[in-house]
Amino acid sequence: MEFRFSERIATLKPSVIREILKADPDPEAVSFAAGNPSPETFPTDEMANIASEIFKNEAGFAFQYGVTEGYTPLRRATAERIANKHNIGRDFDDVIIVSGGQQGIELAAKVLANEGETVICEEPSFIGALNSFRAQNLKLAGVACDENGMRMDLLEQQLIAHPEARLIYTIPTFQNPGGSTLSLERRKKMLELAEKYDVMIIEDSPYFELRYSGESVPTIKSMDDTGRVIFCGSYSKVVAPGIRIGYVCGHKDVLAKMTVAKQVSDVHTNLFFQMLVERLITGGGFDKHIESCCELYRHRRDLMLSLLEQKIERGKAVWTNPDGGLFVWLRMPEGYDGLELCRIVKQQKLTCVPGNAFCVDENAVSNGVRLNFSLPSDEQIVKGCEILANAINEYVKL
Amino acid sequence: MEFRFSERIATLKPSVIREILKADPDPEAVSFAAGNPSPETFPTDEMANIASEIFKNEAGFAFQYGVTEGYTPLRRATAERIANKHNIGRDFDDVIIVSGGQQGIELAAKVLANEGETVICEEPSFIGALNSFRAQNLKLAGVACDENGMRMDLLEQQLIAHPEARLIYTIPTFQNPGGSTLSLERRKKMLELAEKYDVMIIEDSPYFELRYSGESVPTIKSMDDTGRVIFCGSYSKVVAPGIRIGYVCGHKDVLAKMTVAKQVSDVHTNLFFQMLVERLITGGGFDKHIESCCELYRHRRDLMLSLLEQKIERGKAVWTNPDGGLFVWLRMPEGYDGLELCRIVKQQKLTCVPGNAFCVDENAVSNGVRLNFSLPSDEQIVKGCEILANAINEYVKL
Repeated sequence: MEFRFSERIATLKPSVIREILKADPDPEAVSFAAGNPSPETFPTDEMANIASEIFKNEAGFAFQYGVTEGYTPLRRATAERIANKHNIGRDFDDVIIVSGGQQGIELAAKVLANEGETVICEEPSFIGALNSFRAQNLKLAGVACDENGMRMDLLEQQLIAHPEARLIYTIPTFQNPGGSTLSLERRKKMLELAEKYDVMIIEDSPYFELRYSGESVPTIKSMDDTGRVIFCGSYSKVVAPGIRIGYVCGHKDVLAKMTVAKQVSDVHTNLFFQMLVERLITGGGFDKHIESCCELYRHRRDLMLSLLEQKIERGKAVWTNPDGGLFVWLRMPEGYDGLELCRIVKQQKLTCVPGNAFCVDENAVSNGVRLNFSLPSDEQIVKGCEILANAINEYVKL
Repeated sequence: MEFRFSERIATLKPSVIREILKADPDPEAVSFAAGNPSPETFPTDEMANIASEIFKNEAGFAFQYGVTEGYTPLRRATAERIANKHNIGRDFDDVIIVSGGQQGIELAAKVLANEGETVICEEPSFIGALNSFRAQNLKLAGVACDENGMRMDLLEQQLIAHPEARLIYTIPTFQNPGGSTLSLERRKKMLELAEKYDVMIIEDSPYFELRYSGESVPTIKSMDDTGRVIFCGSYSKVVAPGIRIGYVCGHKDVLAKMTVAKQVSDVHTNLFFQMLVERLITGGGFDKHIESCCELYRHRRDLMLSLLEQKIERGKAVWTNPDGGLFVWLRMPEGYDGLELCRIVKQQKLTCVPGNAFCVDENAVSNGVRLNFSLPSDEQIVKGCEILANAINEYVKL
């Protein structure tokens, strides 16, 4: 039979990235396409020990229904940790646990915006968030970034052009895919503009604890005195993504509504792993664990950057030098197509994600390509950069 | 600051049941309010063994991102199991894994109905589903049930009255809260009506494997030759609810859209427990495990029913004699208020859920009260039935 799908879903396509990821099971293939952390960073032994303790002593609780806002000790431990280390959270704020950062983004939009209203976001931006907004029949308005992140003059233009805008969605720290970090000055300006135009800010920060160099910049949430910022955090990159545990810090009134929305979505997040993560982060070695993740990723970033530098002919591409996160964002000169480059390297068994996948207008052409350095091994980085550089050197004619 | 919430969420209240559940931490208190399985039924030892195997051999895979449609071996094992045991699934169908049955319901409505359209459902019905529809700005149209489930004459009236209806939402087997099971004849009629009026059916069946007496009735899905039925199943009641693992069987085209909707909601379901459940159901003892759950619940059901029979004065209440599921649905004579009864017994530390919580019109008065027999111990059932019967005997004047 022919099905009639809802308007919001009918035109929505599966994420290009996840489709690309599914594609090539060949062990010889190299992927710079993922957004995955390295499995080497998963604290598996410690998790196994904690798991067996939970099985022994608290299985009845762990396997029963839990409360929607999350396992209380994990909410508390998370709130304390982000307050102490990152100055996130005021008296009016609260923390709830969600099924990965993605759910935090979806729930925030769900409670704050009606169908047809507009979300203003960086262009390019995280496809998972853009698709979540599209699936809610929200409109997107993109704002270009430079090396200091979203441009505030263009943001204000969009706020004026879209008086029905309800939300700014931003990844201010190690932006995905662009890699830029919003400067302190611009963070303050964004808060000012949010006040002036009465919009809320979703601060999506899955990578903010993965800094390998440079000075850390305060989160926007840490400067939020009115409750306008909803901070979406994640344990995917600092513990493991498969467990689907994230958190949201925001004004109590907003979180109360998000909790109601979560209740009808998945009732609550897997309770066993909420308990496990709580033990992990209160166990004493968590900061050290994050440091060791950073060490690995710093090494891989440096390796990739030095290979791109060595192998790509001068002027044929530029790329970011990210202080953290998981990605390098590479751009060819104007007029060259990132999608075409991805097709070329795909034939040589290297997968990258073309920049247009991250565009507000999915039919846009982008000269960018996103390169992940967290998942591939050193050997794979060497091999992939070789393929990529050769392809660029051949494709781009100066 | 004052927040402006989206229309769909602004008026939505937290589930009365979950609020009631949170309320009384007194160990002396008795609760008939939950929808929880008994922790005694959790196959904890077997789960612990499987978990330690996964930690040992497959942690890198289990903790990495998975695919949205679910862990392939669990999808396959589930599909085989429901096909072989329950004749569910045709060539055009597929199975995806979701984060509990609740997510299956939400995703089905999300991909099939636009805001403002109508869902036709039993009245009373499962509050989690009703709230999920409300949170999507869907309208609800209730259809009364009798001892054979939803009345088909009234269903057709509602289909005529609501030409914009897109969906029938039904819990045909051991309905929550009413306890009725839709007769075979009516199941066929519902399929006919769905064809005639071109609507889809969400068949929500979290309890269908928990049958304690009587003849089993084929699922609606097992008679679906066109792909009109989306079957939402759950491992919450036959493994454990805290792990949040459910499944959906439906037409490939519908599931492809639901997968896209799930991707932007939580990316995928906790992978570790998907793997664990797969081992559990393919390990050989799963049917036996379900039998032992049924044995426990049969005993508790019988205990509760015999106590109600003994202690409530004739004519002051009637109640269902459910062949399965987790609930007895008790009604006082017309004019008596279930909410008032719940308030009375609450003062004596017994919690029940008033019938109005399950009504399409939340302000309706219901003479019903839902009683759960799966979670309380024998001792608690005795104590709770005593309190309840005394309260009814006093409150209801014949």
